[in-house]
Amino acid sequence: MSLPQLIMLPGPTNVSPRVYAAMCKPMINHRGAEFHQLHSRILENAKKVFQTENDLFVLTSSGTGGVECAASNFLLPGEKIVVPVGGTFGERLAEAFRTYGANVIPIEVRMGSAPTADQIREVLEREKDAKAVAVVYNETSTGTTVRDIQRIGEVAKASGALFIVDAISVLGGDDLPVDKWGIDVCITASQKCLATPPGLALISVSRDAWKLAERAKPRSEYFSLIKCRKFRDEKMETPFTPAVNLFFALDEALQMILEIGLERWIWRHKNASAAYYAAFGRMGLSLFAEEASRSTVVIAINMPQGITAKDFREKLRTKYGVVVAGGFGSLKDSIFRIGNMGIVTPREVLITISSIGAALDELGFKGRLGAGINAALPMVSEF
Amino acid sequence: MSLPQLIMLPGPTNVSPRVYAAMCKPMINHRGAEFHQLHSRILENAKKVFQTENDLFVLTSSGTGGVECAASNFLLPGEKIVVPVGGTFGERLAEAFRTYGANVIPIEVRMGSAPTADQIREVLEREKDAKAVAVVYNETSTGTTVRDIQRIGEVAKASGALFIVDAISVLGGDDLPVDKWGIDVCITASQKCLATPPGLALISVSRDAWKLAERAKPRSEYFSLIKCRKFRDEKMETPFTPAVNLFFALDEALQMILEIGLERWIWRHKNASAAYYAAFGRMGLSLFAEEASRSTVVIAINMPQGITAKDFREKLRTKYGVVVAGGFGSLKDSIFRIGNMGIVTPREVLITISSIGAALDELGFKGRLGAGINAALPMVSEF
Repeated sequence: MSLPQLIMLPGPTNVSPRVYAAMCKPMINHRGAEFHQLHSRILENAKKVFQTENDLFVLTSSGTGGVECAASNFLLPGEKIVVPVGGTFGERLAEAFRTYGANVIPIEVRMGSAPTADQIREVLEREKDAKAVAVVYNETSTGTTVRDIQRIGEVAKASGALFIVDAISVLGGDDLPVDKWGIDVCITASQKCLATPPGLALISVSRDAWKLAERAKPRSEYFSLIKCRKFRDEKMETPFTPAVNLFFALDEALQMILEIGLERWIWRHKNASAAYYAAFGRMGLSLFAEEASRSTVVIAINMPQGITAKDFREKLRTKYGVVVAGGFGSLKDSIFRIGNMGIVTPREVLITISSIGAALDELGFKGRLGAGINAALPMVSEF
Repeated sequence: MSLPQLIMLPGPTNVSPRVYAAMCKPMINHRGAEFHQLHSRILENAKKVFQTENDLFVLTSSGTGGVECAASNFLLPGEKIVVPVGGTFGERLAEAFRTYGANVIPIEVRMGSAPTADQIREVLEREKDAKAVAVVYNETSTGTTVRDIQRIGEVAKASGALFIVDAISVLGGDDLPVDKWGIDVCITASQKCLATPPGLALISVSRDAWKLAERAKPRSEYFSLIKCRKFRDEKMETPFTPAVNLFFALDEALQMILEIGLERWIWRHKNASAAYYAAFGRMGLSLFAEEASRSTVVIAINMPQGITAKDFREKLRTKYGVVVAGGFGSLKDSIFRIGNMGIVTPREVLITISSIGAALDELGFKGRLGAGINAALPMVSEF
């Protein structure tokens, strides 16, 4: 017997006992006054975390359901959408739009790097009738963040295209002022930087996005934003039974984030990622993502030569109780990924760095931990 | 301050402390061995409760998401499906198939009554190319159950049509041996007779159903059964992040049901509904559903003259702590509905009958409770 595992995954993440306690509040009627208050407070607080005054909805689904919601509401079959693809989640975003009949113009991005505004502009100059640009802000599969995202938004808007951002793994863990950056549709999920159990997606919808959504009947009933708006406006309800307990949990987590302060909550992720990068750099580990694009929330590290990700992750989990992710697809065995999301304090950072160093040491990557942990100390002491 | 409200709704229902405790187990990796074991046990136990050897999947969505899953996987645009419509959920089932382009042949059913096998046969003789028949087994909006369902299945199969049953509000609360009754696709949700919090849908898929599903690319990514099967077969995982805590809860609830015994679990619902019907009959209340079709899980009662559902439900909730539902749409003020689902013991039955009698008494429906509760005693003592 030991303490529970430390879940350092890129979602789901560790959940605070406070949020777990809220999740077990006695059941309520999802068509009654208590739910209306709960729902209203969640929307209000989630808008603060999104930094938006746009409409916002909470869906009972995973983040991919939020992506499907975007794919099924805004574009008509045959309409063009530009989607940079540099990893699994870019591919998933493109596929969701294809499934609903959009004409997806993919921009191939080398894995580990990020698309730029110039690349998007070039494509939009050629595809003048593109109705939308959709970007994965943080590509979870490669630990890469699109640092040019604000300028990509400007380029999209300048050409009259809707700007859709899949921020599932990053909203709350890096800068993302939705309104200031002109994001029409922003999607996130509960189990990442919002430190809530999985099962909810959140999506914001601008006035321009509504104009596109209102052109035709929704192609999904379950993800119909028109229905969501109607039920919210008329009764502060959801069209279908929501995951009430996950709403309790999200409500508590949002309050926790706002008590700590959104700016500080985001800063914690940045500071912790700086600690990881400093430590791993000094330990002689190399990162999968190029330096200019590396993520604050997913730390993707190349396996040292001669050690497989499988052996390493197994050792780390069974002996040290720390769970990290492997790679997707072709990267399965060559990288490992740390989720730096949600509950981020000196404790998580120190346990994770020291356990990784110790496990690698056992597997033959000798004597690197001390220097690494020293390099992290300035950031750790800042918390 | 008082005890928590007793949630006698047709979902969500009261949840056992044992299930709540399971929901708060420490987070696990949804791509790791612990999840594989959890997922595998859930599927095995859920199949026992469905009484099926068909494939079965758990979706992170409400029950309506389960209906959308059926609507998006089996029929191609333009194909015919016969759907009896006798209330809100029949309408919703028809609408889901229409949204995905099916040619829906509705059979209008008077509210409070149920479709018969003869009605379905007559339509199938006319619409020989119908690919499927989809039936809401228990129409939650009217408290009506389709007692002819086994024969409807025979009629559907005899004409070569797929038999799809929306059993969202009733699976576990009335007889429904999926394989014995030839049901190709059966849908339910966590928050009804499975006594689990809301947020999960369950769907079973027969070999004949797979044949239809395999004809074309799925029209939803999120609800793609082909994807679900692939991830289950390869790794005992779900394609997208599942609501892990709700999986913990469902796992515990299924174990609880099987410990009590499925037969006894179903019988409890029948016995409690008999207690309600005996009590309300003796109290001089009239039922919305015709006697032959009345439900074991949703008791729909006409409001006595001169008392509005709104005043009654408000009194019942605020003074007696018992929450029941009103009607949908045109029935909003004229009926109230009790959910008799999940945790069904003498305690819930006695509190609900006596509180309803007392609240009605206060509102002018005088002196009926005593005879009513006496009429319920034989059933209550049977538990």
